[in-house]
Amino acid sequence: MSNRMVKLVRRPKGMVVREDFKIEDGPVPEPGAGEFRVKIAYISLDPAMRGWMNEGRSYVPPVGLGEVMRGYAVGTVEASNNPAFKPGDAVQGLFGVQRYAVSKGERVVKVDPSQAPLQRWVGGLGMPGWTAYFGLLEVGQPKEGETVVVSAASGAVGSIVGQIARIKGCRAVGIAGGPDKCRYVKEELGFDACVDYKAGNLAADLKAAAPNGIDVYFENVGGEILDTVLLQMNLRGRIPVCGLISAYNATELPEGPKNLRCVLTQRLRMQGLIVFDWVNRIPEAMAQLGAWHKEGKLVIREDVRKGGLDAYPDVLNLLYTGGNQGKLVLAVD
Amino acid sequence: MSNRMVKLVRRPKGMVVREDFKIEDGPVPEPGAGEFRVKIAYISLDPAMRGWMNEGRSYVPPVGLGEVMRGYAVGTVEASNNPAFKPGDAVQGLFGVQRYAVSKGERVVKVDPSQAPLQRWVGGLGMPGWTAYFGLLEVGQPKEGETVVVSAASGAVGSIVGQIARIKGCRAVGIAGGPDKCRYVKEELGFDACVDYKAGNLAADLKAAAPNGIDVYFENVGGEILDTVLLQMNLRGRIPVCGLISAYNATELPEGPKNLRCVLTQRLRMQGLIVFDWVNRIPEAMAQLGAWHKEGKLVIREDVRKGGLDAYPDVLNLLYTGGNQGKLVLAVD
Repeated sequence: MSNRMVKLVRRPKGMVVREDFKIEDGPVPEPGAGEFRVKIAYISLDPAMRGWMNEGRSYVPPVGLGEVMRGYAVGTVEASNNPAFKPGDAVQGLFGVQRYAVSKGERVVKVDPSQAPLQRWVGGLGMPGWTAYFGLLEVGQPKEGETVVVSAASGAVGSIVGQIARIKGCRAVGIAGGPDKCRYVKEELGFDACVDYKAGNLAADLKAAAPNGIDVYFENVGGEILDTVLLQMNLRGRIPVCGLISAYNATELPEGPKNLRCVLTQRLRMQGLIVFDWVNRIPEAMAQLGAWHKEGKLVIREDVRKGGLDAYPDVLNLLYTGGNQGKLVLAVD
Repeated sequence: MSNRMVKLVRRPKGMVVREDFKIEDGPVPEPGAGEFRVKIAYISLDPAMRGWMNEGRSYVPPVGLGEVMRGYAVGTVEASNNPAFKPGDAVQGLFGVQRYAVSKGERVVKVDPSQAPLQRWVGGLGMPGWTAYFGLLEVGQPKEGETVVVSAASGAVGSIVGQIARIKGCRAVGIAGGPDKCRYVKEELGFDACVDYKAGNLAADLKAAAPNGIDVYFENVGGEILDTVLLQMNLRGRIPVCGLISAYNATELPEGPKNLRCVLTQRLRMQGLIVFDWVNRIPEAMAQLGAWHKEGKLVIREDVRKGGLDAYPDVLNLLYTGGNQGKLVLAVD
């Protein structure tokens, strides 16, 4: 068995294409002192990946050309020179888009495959779940009885945001693309309502779904949806900005929100967040999400794609075309 | 003597013109039970006035057609049926753009003409000063050693923001239009630096003036300046949004900030504010601003225009063309 690696070799323009990557085999890496080797089972496909491929200032440096593409993954420790990680341990971390990784254990989280299947630990019980948990509760600060709207509601983060909003006694309204996703959000995830932005009546449909206005808008997409929502925000509403996926493949800077004046007139708080901001509180998020999941209050679904690492570019693009439903994950073998 | 009144009779399109108003005389109003009459000395010209003339949802209802234009003013009580306000008392309040007003005293503040001239109580010691005080300290939350940038730095609010920033141990950088305003901001108001956005090198000049990046951007203007500043904001920077004057006379919705992604990547907090939000703490702001002013730490200048109420439309437009320097005030007689 060799190590198969997806390396970034060119900065993509717009949607990624296969030629932006070199997918090649190499020797299985041997762990050095204090390191362990993970055999990766599932790669997490996250909207942020597209941003990591770009030059320029961001919250993390870009992936260097020729380097293995950055990515969260979950797998099993095979060999270890680190007493904290033993062969057989299931672990989640930023292992990269490859079959094998070595790690010193930094920011690696041990997970319990008896509690939930491996892929769930890069989904609702992993980074997207933690993002939803801290982003909604710490930045959004929803109060019982308020209305929480979340875009990309059927996605990895959005699906958890709305369910936590319900748990906290809020009205949860999703925005998603197409009737199938909306049905899933409402019927399977238990949101109070879901608005199909592709139906062409977003403002009116949102008004009907959130008749008392919007107190918290959890932003995953940006663009026209943000502009429409801004006009329906209540006084002192909060807008946690978790993602702006509508712009991630733009080749020119997209227009910003025309209705920015609502931030002023309604005294809104718009605030960006990255899950790393709560790196010391991840155990709390894992424990709470796990408990809600066990109690049946938190439905989590993955959209696991096969095809192995060779399929990475095509599978990644599903995020930006809306082709996935639930957390998008790539099975390595 | 009659009461001269400036009434809004048409919703302006773009900059106001004289025909949007009817300027007419009427009888001097008599105070009813619990009311008093004020003879107004100075009308405050505020950027927000333009917004008050528009239809649509905002933080206050629009001025009705045929009604006296809304406006802050300062004057002297002439006749009173309200024991809390005696003839001779100097008072500040939302008295409207007219020569005489009657009031029940709601949100009226007594001022001390021996401490500062009357016009200053609608300027640095009045609503613009309170806005700067709460907006910077409560929303901006500057910490010693940080860099605070404020746009419209020579204006009524901006001039106070930068000086409070200095008092709090921050580096204060203004953005203003033209070398005269920049000289005033730096030399008379004591900012550490001032950048002339009309000079055509805003990004580079701002970088030179704020070499450690921007921690707080107090926003008064919006538009391209906001877009440029966003790219230079530091991690966890704060953007109190006090005004978006660049758009107030727009006949079509202007483009929003293209660099909104910085809110996400830098985890910025962008938050709207209106001074009414701290209505119960105005005495605190007045006391503190007055004390700093007395100690010589707070330079306050008004730009008092003559021409009486007839000049209101033309004088108001100076705010939007950058024709004023310091707090713009109209002398009634």
